[in-house]
Amino acid sequence: MPRSAALEPDIVLAERLFDELRRETAQGKGIVRDSYGRGEQTAHAIAARAAAAIGLETARDAALNLYITLPGRDRSAPVLLMGSHLDSVPQGGNYDGAAGVVAGLAALAALRRAGTVPPTDLTVMAIRAEEAAWFDGSYLGSNAAFGLLTAAQYDTIRRSDTGRSLAEHMAECGADVAALRRGDAYLAPARVRGFIELHIEQGPVLESAGIPVGIVTGIRGCRRFRNARCHGAYGHSGAEPRRHRSDAVAATVALIRALEQRWEAEEAAGGDLTFTVGEFTTDPVLHGPSKIAGETRFVLDFRSIDDATMREMRDLSLSLADETGRHFRVRFALGDELVSAPAALDAAMQERIAAIARRRSIPAIAMASGAGHDASVFANLGIPAGMLFVRNAHGSHNSNESMAIEDFAAATRILLSYLAEEVMT
Amino acid sequence: MPRSAALEPDIVLAERLFDELRRETAQGKGIVRDSYGRGEQTAHAIAARAAAAIGLETARDAALNLYITLPGRDRSAPVLLMGSHLDSVPQGGNYDGAAGVVAGLAALAALRRAGTVPPTDLTVMAIRAEEAAWFDGSYLGSNAAFGLLTAAQYDTIRRSDTGRSLAEHMAECGADVAALRRGDAYLAPARVRGFIELHIEQGPVLESAGIPVGIVTGIRGCRRFRNARCHGAYGHSGAEPRRHRSDAVAATVALIRALEQRWEAEEAAGGDLTFTVGEFTTDPVLHGPSKIAGETRFVLDFRSIDDATMREMRDLSLSLADETGRHFRVRFALGDELVSAPAALDAAMQERIAAIARRRSIPAIAMASGAGHDASVFANLGIPAGMLFVRNAHGSHNSNESMAIEDFAAATRILLSYLAEEVMT
Repeated sequence: MPRSAALEPDIVLAERLFDELRRETAQGKGIVRDSYGRGEQTAHAIAARAAAAIGLETARDAALNLYITLPGRDRSAPVLLMGSHLDSVPQGGNYDGAAGVVAGLAALAALRRAGTVPPTDLTVMAIRAEEAAWFDGSYLGSNAAFGLLTAAQYDTIRRSDTGRSLAEHMAECGADVAALRRGDAYLAPARVRGFIELHIEQGPVLESAGIPVGIVTGIRGCRRFRNARCHGAYGHSGAEPRRHRSDAVAATVALIRALEQRWEAEEAAGGDLTFTVGEFTTDPVLHGPSKIAGETRFVLDFRSIDDATMREMRDLSLSLADETGRHFRVRFALGDELVSAPAALDAAMQERIAAIARRRSIPAIAMASGAGHDASVFANLGIPAGMLFVRNAHGSHNSNESMAIEDFAAATRILLSYLAEEVMT
Repeated sequence: MPRSAALEPDIVLAERLFDELRRETAQGKGIVRDSYGRGEQTAHAIAARAAAAIGLETARDAALNLYITLPGRDRSAPVLLMGSHLDSVPQGGNYDGAAGVVAGLAALAALRRAGTVPPTDLTVMAIRAEEAAWFDGSYLGSNAAFGLLTAAQYDTIRRSDTGRSLAEHMAECGADVAALRRGDAYLAPARVRGFIELHIEQGPVLESAGIPVGIVTGIRGCRRFRNARCHGAYGHSGAEPRRHRSDAVAATVALIRALEQRWEAEEAAGGDLTFTVGEFTTDPVLHGPSKIAGETRFVLDFRSIDDATMREMRDLSLSLADETGRHFRVRFALGDELVSAPAALDAAMQERIAAIARRRSIPAIAMASGAGHDASVFANLGIPAGMLFVRNAHGSHNSNESMAIEDFAAATRILLSYLAEEVMT
């Protein structure tokens, strides 16, 4: 049995796979791996060919998620999964998603070459349709694997560029839609003992900290007032004194500024939170440079790994809207709250990963994931899930994403050591 | 010679004229007296007929402003003018503008009936095309009377609903456009010894103070950044920590809130100022509920009777934009500043009007005019100009404007007493 410190992931293979993925799915400046479309099919074919060349088993579920397995001694024991998605946004980058699959292949290749037989199956899952950019929904592949989509959703969920249903796109790729509609699940939570997703960081935290690897503590949830309004009264900008105004802009600005200041305080106290107003508009038909604004429309978006923090901000928004509304003689209507639950990642997994990073002298910091990931599907099913972030410049979802292969190698070494520890148990 | 206290304006005539104006220029719910169009022509014909019936002289200048005169002993001495405009915005109210002409007629009718011969001509001027709603320009009639429009402007200024030029519309109404193009001026500043404009208030100040009459101290000027921008960077709302953001909304909100607070302080210190952000928009093509906003567009509108106050706010905007931009890692570009000068109204006239109001026990308060008026054209030519505001509910430029005839009578009594004092000198 090899010592874990002696094993190195096959980075030559990884570089070759990244090159092939880029070459085969580039369109113009960016990468196009459309979910249940030609680009994603191409990426899956590349991964399957690489698995076969290494001598790993491959299988596909009814939704065409690809499973690449190094068989274990006990083939009936719960499996340890790793992986990520192979689709990309339109004009995306080469690493968002793919890095997790390539890392799994580079790690299993090393174990396979060393003749390792792990206690249970170790499986790389190449997941379908994670990005919300194509279909109106995220995590379609991982949800389908667990039988979590309803029969109706295969028809109602449509791809925005083609207008055609998920069922049509899946069938065209060779999926068994009838089995999916019946609710057949390839994966069951009890049959998965863990899921590890390696992914590029989509923000600038590692880049600016000068650290190659992040150990993800949780995936932020979101509470959002998508359709917030402030109703005031239009008036003459010169003729209406302040004490008579019902100025929707002045009121909305005061509300947002107060929430922003609360965010600063929350952050200073060590809380995990983001607050964003991504949309803010006066009415383009009725507003004017000489008119007090009678209406604003805006979005309040709160994210945290801690739902209690988001609920506090939600409550504060409502009470401040009330108070600020009275002060400015306007009426806020924040509208419906959209909620997506945060996902806590497995604490024991984080500790093991941190210990490995220390042992291998790889600088790593704990951090939350602001963006959503397939790992949240596993975590919210009660499966111990962990994530490794790789430093990445220029964000993601664009063709400028930039990951150094050395950083990818560092994170993949941690993944491989994690698997090797399994082997040694 | 009658004692001024004994004279009463002809309010029966005034009510009859308001009724006739409403009847002849109503369209649906509102009033339509289009500048150099059918509605304004109708209103001018009504005023001219009323003048003739009272036994006053009428004259028209080349631009068809109407002059209704009670002749004085010295017909060559500089004239005392009063009046306002007879056009309205589309679907406007019955009193905005017309009240000043009707008040002049009601006052001169009383003097004429009393057999008064004033020392100089007392003339009501019914002004053309004051509203900016029809042509792309304000105060066209009063400017034309002084020969202040260039020959080219008669062709370049167009009516937005017809697309036809000022010259065409004027000619159709019977104006002498050739004379206007030559620069012929009917009025010369040295031949006018004063101008008094009675007008409904376009804001809620008198209404909420419970006072029928306002004595206008000045007409607010405006300094405006019409095309202000904030350039930040789009980013993921969940994945980008505060210290890395270049959030255009957060920065713009901080800037506006700071200016709003400075306005409160200026007001508390007794300064005259309004500050309005009538337009505020993120980019509808690029913004999104999960995206940090990379750009905002907004307007900063400052108004004051004191240009120094406006310049201070302009300077503060620039320095705060700089400071706030650095703090939020964004770049503000406030763009060109549009300036319209404030007009100071004549202090001696204000004092005389205030003394008359006290003597006649008519509650009156001093106040600035936030909206622009023809009086500013006279004031900025160095002619002593004054304005009387009449309490009015629901603002102006809409069909709900609401002036009590008792309040109109109170203001017109002050106007008449002012004229009567002239007679007695």
